Amino acid sequence: MPQELADHDLDERIRRVIDQKTKPLGALGRLETLAAQICRWQGTVEPALSQPEIVVFAADHGLSAEGVSAYPKAVTAQMAVNILAGGAGVNVLARQHGITVRLVDAGVDWPDRRPAGMIDHWMGPGTGDALTGEAMTAAQVERCLAAGAEVIDRVVDPRCNVIGFGELGIGNTSSASLLVSGLTGLPLADCVGPGSGLRGAGLERKLDVLRRVQARRPAPADAREALGWFGGFEIAQMCGAMGRAQATRRLLLIDGFVATAAFLAAWSLDPTIIAGAVFCHRSGEPGHGRVLDHLGAEPLLDLGMRLGEGSGCAAAYPLLVSAVDFVNQMASFDEAGVATGEPEAAAGAAPPPSDP
Amino acid sequence: MPQELADHDLDERIRRVIDQKTKPLGALGRLETLAAQICRWQGTVEPALSQPEIVVFAADHGLSAEGVSAYPKAVTAQMAVNILAGGAGVNVLARQHGITVRLVDAGVDWPDRRPAGMIDHWMGPGTGDALTGEAMTAAQVERCLAAGAEVIDRVVDPRCNVIGFGELGIGNTSSASLLVSGLTGLPLADCVGPGSGLRGAGLERKLDVLRRVQARRPAPADAREALGWFGGFEIAQMCGAMGRAQATRRLLLIDGFVATAAFLAAWSLDPTIIAGAVFCHRSGEPGHGRVLDHLGAEPLLDLGMRLGEGSGCAAAYPLLVSAVDFVNQMASFDEAGVATGEPEAAAGAAPPPSDP
Repeated sequence: MPQELADHDLDERIRRVIDQKTKPLGALGRLETLAAQICRWQGTVEPALSQPEIVVFAADHGLSAEGVSAYPKAVTAQMAVNILAGGAGVNVLARQHGITVRLVDAGVDWPDRRPAGMIDHWMGPGTGDALTGEAMTAAQVERCLAAGAEVIDRVVDPRCNVIGFGELGIGNTSSASLLVSGLTGLPLADCVGPGSGLRGAGLERKLDVLRRVQARRPAPADAREALGWFGGFEIAQMCGAMGRAQATRRLLLIDGFVATAAFLAAWSLDPTIIAGAVFCHRSGEPGHGRVLDHLGAEPLLDLGMRLGEGSGCAAAYPLLVSAVDFVNQMASFDEAGVATGEPEAAAGAAPPPSDP
Repeated sequence: MPQELADHDLDERIRRVIDQKTKPLGALGRLETLAAQICRWQGTVEPALSQPEIVVFAADHGLSAEGVSAYPKAVTAQMAVNILAGGAGVNVLARQHGITVRLVDAGVDWPDRRPAGMIDHWMGPGTGDALTGEAMTAAQVERCLAAGAEVIDRVVDPRCNVIGFGELGIGNTSSASLLVSGLTGLPLADCVGPGSGLRGAGLERKLDVLRRVQARRPAPADAREALGWFGGFEIAQMCGAMGRAQATRRLLLIDGFVATAAFLAAWSLDPTIIAGAVFCHRSGEPGHGRVLDHLGAEPLLDLGMRLGEGSGCAAAYPLLVSAVDFVNQMASFDEAGVATGEPEAAAGAAPPPSDP
């Protein structure tokens, strides 16, 4: 049977199962489209979520030397330790939902040595300064993409079928802004925001630095070139991990602005990746809405969160569970002996005939 | 100590606790304002959610004889049975989050007799037809308000400190539209929508019927009069239950359009009720956004859900848990040894001094 026909049959079955649940047509709104997406991605009308994980990629950025962040670079290493100790935002939200958190050292500038418990894909103590050179070499980009894929193949539980992607890296909203502007053609000013909290002159300074970077390298040929120019190690590794997660048929949970920039790179390498991607939230970082629009993505939550770390994936995860549960557990009209809506009444041809 | 001073001190303590968590200021967005609301309502910086419940009030509506719904009136009783059997949307979502569901018979038109397992506050087989008379008498309104309060006092677990309010009743978006328009002054056309699925001529018919009801009784003096004119039993009982839940210091979870109409009535009786109210979602029913705006309410979710039953309360509940958990479990900057943001860097006075 041709794949297209099979998919059409599956879509029909999914629609029927959802529409037969004891609710007005479409009354679960976005949960219904989410359920349909999960069913389709898993090729079943009995979807399941198994062993959810959030993988957080951490790295430092040469560009942070240019004063593009409200926080000093040392905070990347400090926050990595905080995540390992279970005290960060993503830990709390992941614990709530039974999600395993893993932390990858993609290139943190450690003051001493790497703490135990991290997955080692260290590329160096941060990327190069994109303002004076390039963030990483073409070879480093390839190594990052491969490292990300390897995390999916060797670290993530084989039974896991839903993976959230998080990041940690002082300065990485700058890389994300440059990537998004470079890969979409959106004006840079639309892609730059406060990050961890810049305002006023600090925000002006960030935009000015990024304008100068972009002026040097205005038009990347593709996602690989853009990642090399603008970084960072953690973004490139996320990109590789997302591609591999899609290839192994996992659901991809996409977090905020930086994670979505990584997704944008992965999508520009292979647009089919979007079929298994769930956009968890619209971040408070202003550029995020622009890139979501570019991708035609409809995020689940809109809570003004802008913490990164995969925290938005964790916050949205229970909605995926809700989507799967209603498909598997809600009674159908037949099962419950409930009358369906009357098309004539809905269209107003006559008052409901069964009224007592 | 005067109450106002105490509250100010508490607000300060709450702000300090939230701002000391290892995250950029405000980076958890709406979860932070939600956490602050819960802390303030509970008078503590160690908030807790205990024994959550959703109480669903069900009743029929005389107005449904006028053809204002896509579903026949018999569906109210059928869906009540479905909820009792655990097969409805609210059951599935509540089960996911460990929320107890209770179902109150406020006045269902049973074909036979009431099934076991419902809380009996039956006011009759549905309200009167608001188009030809009034939905209920002033005495019935009082009995409904008292019945709702009694559910809180005698049925809900005394340890429960967070209560969602759901409803079930073919025709009840019509009552809600009339209540909202009558109590806010919003034009009726802005308050009327598809309900369970009217469209085209069916929707026109509904609007025409409601216009004729409103023409007979354009300006209710207060919420009691509006409830008497427009119904329904379940809405008036919810209104009474909400007031009692507030008085006993529970958090109130407000669902969609009909539940918000009940809240509007409770709020017009006592505006302080809003302090403990969490607006769970913006429903797909178009009038809901208008009444939320009128109340200055910022809902948590915006998923186009329009199922009623308290389903939106269940879907949003994990966000309340997230808000409470981050306050109780996330590490502070001090605890984690993480550097805080630098105001000078944020304002751009100088590049971060601690950069290596």
